[in-house]
Amino acid sequence: MVWFKSMGEFDLIERCFVGKGGGPSPFTLLGIGDDASLHQLEAGMELVVSSDSSLAGVHWPVDLPLEIGADRAICSALSDLAAMGAEPLCCWLNVMAESSDAVVQMGAGATAALKRHGVELVGGDTTRALCNALSVTVAGKLPKATAMRRDQGLIDDKIWILGRVGFHRAGLQQWFDGQKEGCFMSDFHRIEPLLTAAVQLREQGVRCCMDVSDGLLQDAMHLASASSMGMEIELSLLPDWQQLVAELGEESAIHYAAYGGEDYALLFTAPASMYFDGAACIGHCSAEAGVRASLNHKTIEIEKAGYDHFK
Amino acid sequence: MVWFKSMGEFDLIERCFVGKGGGPSPFTLLGIGDDASLHQLEAGMELVVSSDSSLAGVHWPVDLPLEIGADRAICSALSDLAAMGAEPLCCWLNVMAESSDAVVQMGAGATAALKRHGVELVGGDTTRALCNALSVTVAGKLPKATAMRRDQGLIDDKIWILGRVGFHRAGLQQWFDGQKEGCFMSDFHRIEPLLTAAVQLREQGVRCCMDVSDGLLQDAMHLASASSMGMEIELSLLPDWQQLVAELGEESAIHYAAYGGEDYALLFTAPASMYFDGAACIGHCSAEAGVRASLNHKTIEIEKAGYDHFK
Repeated sequence: MVWFKSMGEFDLIERCFVGKGGGPSPFTLLGIGDDASLHQLEAGMELVVSSDSSLAGVHWPVDLPLEIGADRAICSALSDLAAMGAEPLCCWLNVMAESSDAVVQMGAGATAALKRHGVELVGGDTTRALCNALSVTVAGKLPKATAMRRDQGLIDDKIWILGRVGFHRAGLQQWFDGQKEGCFMSDFHRIEPLLTAAVQLREQGVRCCMDVSDGLLQDAMHLASASSMGMEIELSLLPDWQQLVAELGEESAIHYAAYGGEDYALLFTAPASMYFDGAACIGHCSAEAGVRASLNHKTIEIEKAGYDHFK
Repeated sequence: MVWFKSMGEFDLIERCFVGKGGGPSPFTLLGIGDDASLHQLEAGMELVVSSDSSLAGVHWPVDLPLEIGADRAICSALSDLAAMGAEPLCCWLNVMAESSDAVVQMGAGATAALKRHGVELVGGDTTRALCNALSVTVAGKLPKATAMRRDQGLIDDKIWILGRVGFHRAGLQQWFDGQKEGCFMSDFHRIEPLLTAAVQLREQGVRCCMDVSDGLLQDAMHLASASSMGMEIELSLLPDWQQLVAELGEESAIHYAAYGGEDYALLFTAPASMYFDGAACIGHCSAEAGVRASLNHKTIEIEKAGYDHFK
């Protein structure tokens, strides 16, 4: 960890990052300023950690303000904690930037998101690079043996989704089309990790969940595969499906809802006896491996999977 | 966390990363494959975490094989754990790569380093980028309230160093000069984080330590400042100083030892009553703020500090 040295880079760090996130939290004994941060975990709790990179031009369009890109980078990382049902604790942030201005902009976006979600910034570094990017590591906690995992789905479970899918992709298309006041723009600008709702799901007893970051059907395939089962999904049951069809037509609605990423809805399964207010039941788990999607009970051919960096 | 999806990127991840590091360790309950990893910490222990990025062309020359750059990235991160006296547990690795070949090469270097140090790879992601880079987050543990910190130095403590400084910088110069069989090449190629020695220092009772990554005098200034004291350092007492002078002449030896980075020696302070076999005592802590360096008791003017990304 190289934060807090002497000059330029370090004045910048002090100005942009130190004390700017949420917190402090009792989890952290020593934050920014040493070679590493120090933490304690209460008895009976497990630690949950996720780490991901977000790059301008890859995870968001290069003409999107860097503040927004950095806010999204933090929120997508926090969504991984939500997927497990964890309460977020802190963040280590590595900023790679073309210029000191880019550091300032990404710092502002990242720390605003951390503050909004009460997450302490405890370490990381800042590096000159050929591109603007953030690597975000987040930690959270949950009571022992209660994590919502991808491998805990059971045949005959119902499939639920909390949050909309396809709307981010629709907003991205509006952005590319120059419709920067378009009706989906807020879905594109802002990720809201469903942290509070996820903790409630875990407390209600949900044990199988993931966040939909790479497209509903690709992500469902990972969940189905991890749980050694199949999934049957009816697209017309998706939250606000009719709105998506009304705005985009059925073909684009199917495409965006099934394959569009970055919505960060929570996809979870639960026994048929359970009910979840505010979530939509979109299908059921089955014994036959794989994922099958239908629209108004007519099978949709699954044409392609989500985003792949090296295809 | 987006590891383990379906195709190209994910075959690559399976081939290059899954099960390739050290471990598994009892710290990890769930590793690669879900939205986040899950961990437990024994009672009486603290968690130590550091996160840093390493970029081709910034942290290592672009013509250095990516395997070596990635190995160095892991080892420099582990050195931050050594600086605190922590026993390493696991690593989350974000790989940004220009091509799938670059992923394979950085994966090989990173996992080799993790395996050599018995550190489990538990998460991260792989992203297409305009540059080759790694963001490395590492976690370790140590008994409560025993961490070696930068702010625990005391006036009249002796200053010690374990490991050599200036040798990496000398090797980098040989690399730039095309002397790729030069006598300093092994110091340039390979970082060896002093993990075992650091745990021994902590167990001996050392409470103030840092790793020298950005140049001896710049790093000493951070330690002195954190501990609200001054430091008096005699360069001729540095390990293998005579060898450095013999190979480079006095002027370059001073410059490389005082300001060259990336050596990852451990700089620590301790009461005068303590002695450390294998380490060199290079000075003492004083009441006057700042760092003063001498060579054969003649003051050296401190001309500049170490590397700064945004100056």
